[in-house]
Amino acid sequence: MVHVARNLAKDCNDLIGKEVLLRGWVERTRTHGKVAFFDLRDRSGIIQITAHGELAPKVAELSSQDVVEVKGVARARDEKYINPELETGKVEVHLERQNVISKAAEMPFDMGGKELNLELPTLLDFRSLTLRHSKIAPIFKIQEAIVEGFRKASKELGCTEVFTPTISYSSTEGGADVFRVDYYGHKAFLIQSPQLYKQILMPVFERVSLISHAYRAEPSVTTRHLSESIQLDCELGFMEFEELLDSLEFVGTETINHAAKAHPDILKNYGVEKPAIPKKIPRLKMREAQEIIFEITNRDVRNELDLGPEDEKDICKWALKEHNSDFVTITHFPLAKRAFYTHPDPDNPEFSLSYDLLFRGVEILSGSKRVDNYEKLSEIIKERGMNPADFEMYLQAFKYGIPPHGGFSFGLERMTMKLLNLSNIREASLFPRDMERIDQRFSVKEK
Amino acid sequence: MVHVARNLAKDCNDLIGKEVLLRGWVERTRTHGKVAFFDLRDRSGIIQITAHGELAPKVAELSSQDVVEVKGVARARDEKYINPELETGKVEVHLERQNVISKAAEMPFDMGGKELNLELPTLLDFRSLTLRHSKIAPIFKIQEAIVEGFRKASKELGCTEVFTPTISYSSTEGGADVFRVDYYGHKAFLIQSPQLYKQILMPVFERVSLISHAYRAEPSVTTRHLSESIQLDCELGFMEFEELLDSLEFVGTETINHAAKAHPDILKNYGVEKPAIPKKIPRLKMREAQEIIFEITNRDVRNELDLGPEDEKDICKWALKEHNSDFVTITHFPLAKRAFYTHPDPDNPEFSLSYDLLFRGVEILSGSKRVDNYEKLSEIIKERGMNPADFEMYLQAFKYGIPPHGGFSFGLERMTMKLLNLSNIREASLFPRDMERIDQRFSVKEK
Repeated sequence: MVHVARNLAKDCNDLIGKEVLLRGWVERTRTHGKVAFFDLRDRSGIIQITAHGELAPKVAELSSQDVVEVKGVARARDEKYINPELETGKVEVHLERQNVISKAAEMPFDMGGKELNLELPTLLDFRSLTLRHSKIAPIFKIQEAIVEGFRKASKELGCTEVFTPTISYSSTEGGADVFRVDYYGHKAFLIQSPQLYKQILMPVFERVSLISHAYRAEPSVTTRHLSESIQLDCELGFMEFEELLDSLEFVGTETINHAAKAHPDILKNYGVEKPAIPKKIPRLKMREAQEIIFEITNRDVRNELDLGPEDEKDICKWALKEHNSDFVTITHFPLAKRAFYTHPDPDNPEFSLSYDLLFRGVEILSGSKRVDNYEKLSEIIKERGMNPADFEMYLQAFKYGIPPHGGFSFGLERMTMKLLNLSNIREASLFPRDMERIDQRFSVKEK
Repeated sequence: MVHVARNLAKDCNDLIGKEVLLRGWVERTRTHGKVAFFDLRDRSGIIQITAHGELAPKVAELSSQDVVEVKGVARARDEKYINPELETGKVEVHLERQNVISKAAEMPFDMGGKELNLELPTLLDFRSLTLRHSKIAPIFKIQEAIVEGFRKASKELGCTEVFTPTISYSSTEGGADVFRVDYYGHKAFLIQSPQLYKQILMPVFERVSLISHAYRAEPSVTTRHLSESIQLDCELGFMEFEELLDSLEFVGTETINHAAKAHPDILKNYGVEKPAIPKKIPRLKMREAQEIIFEITNRDVRNELDLGPEDEKDICKWALKEHNSDFVTITHFPLAKRAFYTHPDPDNPEFSLSYDLLFRGVEILSGSKRVDNYEKLSEIIKERGMNPADFEMYLQAFKYGIPPHGGFSFGLERMTMKLLNLSNIREASLFPRDMERIDQRFSVKEK
């Protein structure tokens, strides 16, 4: 590998007294007569550039987001100018020469502040600009670390990472919320989840993990749903219910923990605590959770068929208070509320061997033990009004020897949102897709 | 984590004399009167189960792909029965009890041989069965390792791993080969590549890597194209042409090398050599490559606007012979043959700052330095008959300060195919998509 002479912002800490060559973006400029400053951002961080004497007026020529090349000498800052909030806060670069590589147009809003106080539509309309902000870009560093944590944990479980298609012949979960694709004149759908494929792979690899896109054409706008999202999936063969619960709690907590440990500075900047993870995550059947909610809030949800958003918040508060846990596992949801491949609870077939993992007030993971009998599965598909012929390859796997198995999946954006306490899931997606927008809003595009 | 008492096949090597509990699939059975054998497969490998005396007839009840639980005692094999080809070839398990967990239907073809000699349509029609075969499943272990190698190498380059959408408003590369999606009544496409998004992210992360799906509605059936494929992408800011070439050769060779080193046994089973990677990968301009092809084969392709499949093979033969290299980098393709965002060669604008990396006779990676000027880019989009309004967010990135940059992308299935010398790219995809099939062939489905 050839290494060019360029230095990164954070390298300057170790280059005091040396000449440096930096390249990056102008973040903000400040001029005070004979001395002027600007903050230069590159992929390693931010560094202050200081211009003295006749060079000071040159800084006034720069504007936010200009791409510049800077030559100068790294110097220790005066004690009184040290910035403890910056990784390079003890150093600055005394400008010798600057060169604009790419001139930016005038900013449509202030990009120089610590916060980017924009309404969501503006935040998304100018996505290629707003993503650069030092409060926004780190969201996706956390996201990267979540995926790393997931891969590490699922690998520890013995999973093979696989790659499955997104264009499918059948709709995974039934229902009308599917996007249709014109596939060489044939009908096809975008998958609602990679569920069927990961199950087919049980007799191949026994344990698989995958990172897939998932598509839901939900005709509604909420703060926690996207039309296209990234799903982190595990499916595990030869596992019974208890071991599945152990596994999902292992992967769920390790994933979040890995991300939190990788970037304590980002958590701090977002004002969020590192996750509370006890040795044993509290586990409740849905009916038990509803009882507890009734006891602590007097809200009677004991006959509801599912937990609502309010319920999820309340039971998470309880878990934090009683078990010092930011996580709580809820099991045994009513069978009718879960996908067709969900295994009924043998002790009470109205309920199911299903589970959700809640984190800080919201479900981040969902899954179940699966039906693993060919005849039963074919029957269920018919009962739910679907056609077994649309599930031919899936059913084939069950016909030729399939082990007991189960699995779970995370929503990547959902996890990112909750870990950083963002108010809308769109903030946790680089380029969010919803019914109102593909990059630009439809109303704007179709003018 | 709770660990159940189950043992894996390969653990038996260390459990001689001990009682073991195994779970897995029956691969093949052999009975010889008072002694019978079967091979049991689990995620760790294969182990021989031996049944003596009154247990021997029980083995005859088993058939291929039955899922069984086996209790027995691990024993060292007699010297003369040692199988050097098997990781557990020195050990066997003396059966005490067997239990069928899931009975398989009768096999439509022989699954017990070392090779699975099936025509491609059958291989794919019974994908959930054929993937289990011990010659087939390892293809996807190689694939997993290729992705691992790519992630490792791109991380070493300082890339942030990002996740970008597949539903888009504009067609990345122009042309008619796009799949249309009905997006809440609006027109939308499946991306031909994540190209536009990775460029938009240059001013955010400077260097990014991503693993994306890519869709091409090519109305043709070839041995090296899929309608849906996995693409491994890098995009690198502040890099000029030479450094881009260094980077792509670094990532390309490290990726392949990582996979080859991770699974020498699989390469051996496929009868392929480990890749020849010299210190310096040979680099040729396309015109130089054409000259060499003319010299060594007398085939005159010196006026062609691109390299054909035959040319790629010939120049790879040359690279292996002259440079002991399985890789060769070809640069400077005609500008008109490359995507709109390709940077022209300043010295000869009919050509471009583009490159392909060839591996063993086929292109596995393609890329270029990019146009990085807002006005020029808008112009080119118009010149190519596309509408700049369809590229609004992309162009926005260029308007507000973008660095010089370039990048490249690999086809995951293409790499897998070439590394194992498979004859058809469909063999390198778990569930391949082409114009004739989504899992089942259309002709079969629409009966």
